Amino acid sequence: MSWDGKGATLLDSRRQWPRYASVKEMEIAIDEIRAELASTEDIISTDPDDLHAHGYSEWSTVNPDSLPVAVAYPRSTEQVSVIARICSKYHVPMIPYSGGTSLEGNFSAPFGGVSVDFAYMDQVLQFNREDMDVVVQPSVGWQDLNDHLAKMESGLFFPVDPGVINLTVVLADGTIIKTRRRPRKSSAGYNLNSLFVGSEGTLGLVTEATLKLAVVPEALSVAIATFPTIRDAAAAAAEVMQGGIPVAAMEIMDEVQMRVVNLGGATAPRVWRETPTLFFKFAGSTAAVQDNIAQVQGIARRNKGDEFEFAKDAREQKLLWSARKESLWSMLALRREGEEVWSTDVAVPFSRLADIIEVSKKEMDDLGLFASILGHIGDGNFHESIIYNPVNGEKEKVEACVKNMVRRALDMEGTCTGEHSIGWGKKDSLLLEVGEDTLAVMRAVKAALDPAWIMNPGKIFDRLE
Amino acid sequence: MSWDGKGATLLDSRRQWPRYASVKEMEIAIDEIRAELASTEDIISTDPDDLHAHGYSEWSTVNPDSLPVAVAYPRSTEQVSVIARICSKYHVPMIPYSGGTSLEGNFSAPFGGVSVDFAYMDQVLQFNREDMDVVVQPSVGWQDLNDHLAKMESGLFFPVDPGVINLTVVLADGTIIKTRRRPRKSSAGYNLNSLFVGSEGTLGLVTEATLKLAVVPEALSVAIATFPTIRDAAAAAAEVMQGGIPVAAMEIMDEVQMRVVNLGGATAPRVWRETPTLFFKFAGSTAAVQDNIAQVQGIARRNKGDEFEFAKDAREQKLLWSARKESLWSMLALRREGEEVWSTDVAVPFSRLADIIEVSKKEMDDLGLFASILGHIGDGNFHESIIYNPVNGEKEKVEACVKNMVRRALDMEGTCTGEHSIGWGKKDSLLLEVGEDTLAVMRAVKAALDPAWIMNPGKIFDRLE
Repeated sequence: MSWDGKGATLLDSRRQWPRYASVKEMEIAIDEIRAELASTEDIISTDPDDLHAHGYSEWSTVNPDSLPVAVAYPRSTEQVSVIARICSKYHVPMIPYSGGTSLEGNFSAPFGGVSVDFAYMDQVLQFNREDMDVVVQPSVGWQDLNDHLAKMESGLFFPVDPGVINLTVVLADGTIIKTRRRPRKSSAGYNLNSLFVGSEGTLGLVTEATLKLAVVPEALSVAIATFPTIRDAAAAAAEVMQGGIPVAAMEIMDEVQMRVVNLGGATAPRVWRETPTLFFKFAGSTAAVQDNIAQVQGIARRNKGDEFEFAKDAREQKLLWSARKESLWSMLALRREGEEVWSTDVAVPFSRLADIIEVSKKEMDDLGLFASILGHIGDGNFHESIIYNPVNGEKEKVEACVKNMVRRALDMEGTCTGEHSIGWGKKDSLLLEVGEDTLAVMRAVKAALDPAWIMNPGKIFDRLE
Repeated sequence: MSWDGKGATLLDSRRQWPRYASVKEMEIAIDEIRAELASTEDIISTDPDDLHAHGYSEWSTVNPDSLPVAVAYPRSTEQVSVIARICSKYHVPMIPYSGGTSLEGNFSAPFGGVSVDFAYMDQVLQFNREDMDVVVQPSVGWQDLNDHLAKMESGLFFPVDPGVINLTVVLADGTIIKTRRRPRKSSAGYNLNSLFVGSEGTLGLVTEATLKLAVVPEALSVAIATFPTIRDAAAAAAEVMQGGIPVAAMEIMDEVQMRVVNLGGATAPRVWRETPTLFFKFAGSTAAVQDNIAQVQGIARRNKGDEFEFAKDAREQKLLWSARKESLWSMLALRREGEEVWSTDVAVPFSRLADIIEVSKKEMDDLGLFASILGHIGDGNFHESIIYNPVNGEKEKVEACVKNMVRRALDMEGTCTGEHSIGWGKKDSLLLEVGEDTLAVMRAVKAALDPAWIMNPGKIFDRLE
């Protein structure tokens, strides 16, 4: 269903919403956008399937009961600015959309409005080889960017931990700003990069980013180590961290997740041991990588690691990493008719990771729920994916378990989300986590930059009276 | 002189200032702070020398012609909150003060008010060994913290590039907030850490910080390489960066700076070659450090490096690094009666570093000014220190050169400051750099969190009508 003006009734009485445009007014705004950007084909879609794809997600833990009234497909920052200016004039919500991978209803449209899909803004605009940076539009994918850099034989890549040099942002009223020029370091004024990154489109629409690149290492390798328990695996990971051994990635998958990969069959004929497993990536000089592998192997052995395997060539690297790579897809493939997957994440100080995983797994097991764990262990961050059937009351059980896990994470001084962010689904958790006064600071920043509250409204926190 | 209510006349007519407390009202506020915090000794000082030390700095490029009316010495976050609540009630400006090392009038008191000196908040409150983090008060020095960690044989240290997990902040009205709990990673809500860090006390008073620690590497070493020209040195540095060779530090000092160190005599009997010199720090496993040194030596040679020296033991490391460490003090020691030092910094995309250094040096030389260069070359960031005599018109020449250098940096897509920040001295440069619209975003954030504009007013940007 499209926005019918009734979304606000879902909310409790303390939350106040600005008067957004009626459906009729939204349509006037959309016509005005069409007219002003008339030279461009297909700038606006109101196709029902398109609206559904932009307002509903089968990955998401939550889906508000409404859809955007239109999807805009801008081709440039200037077009985004026109869209924002007109939406601002009519009080039409704007929701940015790019990869569509978010899990907490982040791109949902609880108040209708326009979904701004960056599909056609997918260009690498500048590559500054000597400065080791690149200017990209929003829909350049991480892997596409790295393929592009590899094809140019640049010797550079975009690493997993992104560094942002500057952003071009379209504000609520259509004003275009650039946060900085192109120095890798600056202490000039407020750090607006970090303010806009992670703000989930609630402060502005990012239309360009300059990203730091890193040098492709001389050598790469992959290793896996299996352990009798999550606690042993976590102890080994802690020793790797505390030993300062440079690993490019260190991931944990529990015995359920390993079984899921076997059941999924995507990595066949390889059959994995169904036991807690650490996945490592190493990068650096050939000598350093060999040295690091040897050290990690020793640590695994000291922590009851019962198998250690490292890749001798690129083919084996791919094979060993395949279980990690296929984990989510394997889980999704296991759903039977009518079943859904709830995917959530929390992070804790890493000394507490084994504790929270153990208790949370037990709670799920005791309820007979099928849940798997995958973690970025060096960050104390892990994901839990739970298969459930919404028709037999399992959804409520899952929700209760997730809430308990969040509370547990907060009690351990952690956070309700390490990566997925708040969206529409974890607003209550954010309040629990930071409290009213810190949330008031976030709200004040939001109200300052978007006084009409039209940028992705209903996400991260609600407006208060 | 103390605040006389006339500071605002220094400003042009577009800038509007809130009505701050008169000197009499400020005194009432101070009495109220004294009364409420009566159990504490020495919470407030109005000693003229103390006021001078907190409102004037001989390092600073600028010193507004006024001083704070009092210095407060809180012992806890709660006391800072009391001070803020009372200052807020009477519209008294608050200026945070800690190391006193800032260079752009950052802690000056152009509108009087209270300097909040954190001298007594110098404790390490928590050390979480397993989580590799530490909770500190504002006056814990970097070196003190590392001495503390070494004494505990923690195996951890606080690295040069700081990672902040959370902050405790006292807002303008005295509200105490904590930005996050203690996870190393989070995507929950806006990134308030990065908003407050670098905001120069204009958004709140940071009273606690949780910092990420790193593992002390197995091996450390230091090397220096000399070059015929800055351009050769920069080319070598670029090759190190583009080769992805991990260096813990890479610094450049020009021939003038090397001469300054010789003249200062602090590193005697060692006499340095007076030629552009790169300083390297290496950290990692013993094998990796040896390997990195060999690679860097090869790169230096290929780029006309005419001498390469690396430390064989800890004593030599100290010796080789001493020229870098003593550089500022050596420059200050060279001042003759009546002379002052102007110290400034800019940063550019690193492919432009040699260009900007060459042109800027030539401009100084042509004017007969004595100026030395020191740079964090991997960041494209460098400092220029200029000795001048304010009585013979040299100050105006220096100011013009610095403005030209800033303009040059901006033309090269750089920033007006890599490290020193804006303070009172570089406000016009910030406007040139980011433009009115981006500055408007920063101002909106400021006005949202400090509507009465009492947090370190006059810094970073001015209030507009």
